[in-house]
Amino acid sequence: MTLSPKPKGKSASGSVVDRMQALVAGDLAEVEKILIDRAASPVAVIPDLSGYIVSAGGKRLRPMLTLIAAHAVGKPNNATHVLAAAVEFIHTATLLHDDVVDESDLRRGKPAAKAIWGNSASILVGDFLFARAFNLLVETRSLDILDKLATASTTIAEGEVRQLAAMNARDMPTEEYLAIVEAKTGALFEAAAESGAMSAGGDEFAHAFATYGKNLGLAFQIIDDVLDYGGTTSVIGKSVGDDFRECKITLPVIIAKRRGSDEDRAFWDRAMNPDTQEDADLAHAVHLIRATGAAEATVQEAEAYAGMAKGALRPLPDSPYRDALIDLADFCVSRAY
Amino acid sequence: MTLSPKPKGKSASGSVVDRMQALVAGDLAEVEKILIDRAASPVAVIPDLSGYIVSAGGKRLRPMLTLIAAHAVGKPNNATHVLAAAVEFIHTATLLHDDVVDESDLRRGKPAAKAIWGNSASILVGDFLFARAFNLLVETRSLDILDKLATASTTIAEGEVRQLAAMNARDMPTEEYLAIVEAKTGALFEAAAESGAMSAGGDEFAHAFATYGKNLGLAFQIIDDVLDYGGTTSVIGKSVGDDFRECKITLPVIIAKRRGSDEDRAFWDRAMNPDTQEDADLAHAVHLIRATGAAEATVQEAEAYAGMAKGALRPLPDSPYRDALIDLADFCVSRAY
Repeated sequence: MTLSPKPKGKSASGSVVDRMQALVAGDLAEVEKILIDRAASPVAVIPDLSGYIVSAGGKRLRPMLTLIAAHAVGKPNNATHVLAAAVEFIHTATLLHDDVVDESDLRRGKPAAKAIWGNSASILVGDFLFARAFNLLVETRSLDILDKLATASTTIAEGEVRQLAAMNARDMPTEEYLAIVEAKTGALFEAAAESGAMSAGGDEFAHAFATYGKNLGLAFQIIDDVLDYGGTTSVIGKSVGDDFRECKITLPVIIAKRRGSDEDRAFWDRAMNPDTQEDADLAHAVHLIRATGAAEATVQEAEAYAGMAKGALRPLPDSPYRDALIDLADFCVSRAY
Repeated sequence: MTLSPKPKGKSASGSVVDRMQALVAGDLAEVEKILIDRAASPVAVIPDLSGYIVSAGGKRLRPMLTLIAAHAVGKPNNATHVLAAAVEFIHTATLLHDDVVDESDLRRGKPAAKAIWGNSASILVGDFLFARAFNLLVETRSLDILDKLATASTTIAEGEVRQLAAMNARDMPTEEYLAIVEAKTGALFEAAAESGAMSAGGDEFAHAFATYGKNLGLAFQIIDDVLDYGGTTSVIGKSVGDDFRECKITLPVIIAKRRGSDEDRAFWDRAMNPDTQEDADLAHAVHLIRATGAAEATVQEAEAYAGMAKGALRPLPDSPYRDALIDLADFCVSRAY
């Protein structure tokens, strides 16, 4: 197993998302309409900035999860559509704030909103989208759905703060890393899938979708983290080395460090410190992550979560939607090949 | 009328708030408990930072409004208490983000949270408190209350962005200034009072409380803006000249500029530009605001809103709570003397 891009994997991944989009095309069109309508404001910078990031090549994974979960248990309705839009607004708000916190000037290979409109506008438009998400959630008329998304939002913010607090730690236990990923990414995938099913009357399957979403989110983020040390930027538009330059400790680093020699560990301690990191360090970091098998071990960890995600779908009736969710779990992991 | 501090005004103001606090002391104690309990997190920086700002000498004006509105129409209950706490969390979240956006290192005369924990922590803990506020609002089990607070939050963010967008404008029409103040401050006062009444079954008076809250918020903010050019820091703990140094155009400046000579207008254009402002300009700005009567005219504008606030309470049954709300409107304005 290598991390160099394989055309097969790449095109297969593309077609999974394409097939999913086709499966819920009508619903996605409704969601897109809501995303545009509800980012409208007489204050021009709000639709400008949010339009820029909302349409900046995101795959709409989270709202698709909501829509497909609804289809898998019943029929999406207006509540499902506003819920899916709310999920995307919450995700977008976190991206805007993340870029400010991470000091990233690029997002999916394009200039981050903050590089164009500045930090202040990114913070405040993020706040607007987050608040607007709750307006949309009220329109679902479901306190249970509101509760799920409010809790997910709290968990995401808690995970972000936890990651920030861990930023200056030399070492991060694997458990700490996984807890952060579960909070930052798993919580919204979980709420998106679970509440999607709930919006279509599928309460009996809510737990299955929650488990699916959480584990899918973990697999997705873990693969993202290994892609940062060797994926192709063309697949997800994320520049290689972002996490490294921010000295963000992720699973490939944790494993490479644990498996490395004393010399390797000294390298990681120096390189993962903003005061002592050097430009040439990234290439050596990528080398160590491959040489120690950390990349492969990281992918295996993601595969385990993808397996748990798929396992959670067992109670569901057979349908093209259930199949699509299984394909999606496989796709998440296949991105690494 | 002068803007120099009068001990009478100051102590009278203090006692109004003290009397209000005494009137709802039991309820406020419940709210304080919720504020502490619900800012708890295993991630230490969350309770540390939010505890710092939540207990940093705020007068709890907004939650008091919620509690007194509930008392004025019925009896506060658990929904009222969690609602009041949610209102304070939303307010606190906006303060945290404001300090980052305004680059303020002081808040109520103490170091701003961002000066201690940094911008990133302030952004993310703000997000946490905002999300947690919606958890609390779900506990009210009222979609109508959730709707009011989600809309107020959206309006606040929209007002903040509008203010940011106006930052580089040389002139600001009075209508634009008032629209920003209504959004940034009026909306939360409005929602706090209106939903407080709703939480205690006072739907028939919801509109009266909404009108009261909005106008009170306008009066309050307009007075804050004139205090920034001549109030005493000991009353509100806000350093004089904050708005001026940030080149934030507020009503005293709008009026002083409109009434001033060509020379005065040239001064304002130069001084309200971060590239050309000089240290000595603040003293001259304060002088012009007094000499043109702009300070007095600004206070009169606030008095008009305070009058509308009081007028809105006419349909209410007579009670010590209604009296307290009338006193509060007078207190808002009296801070300027």
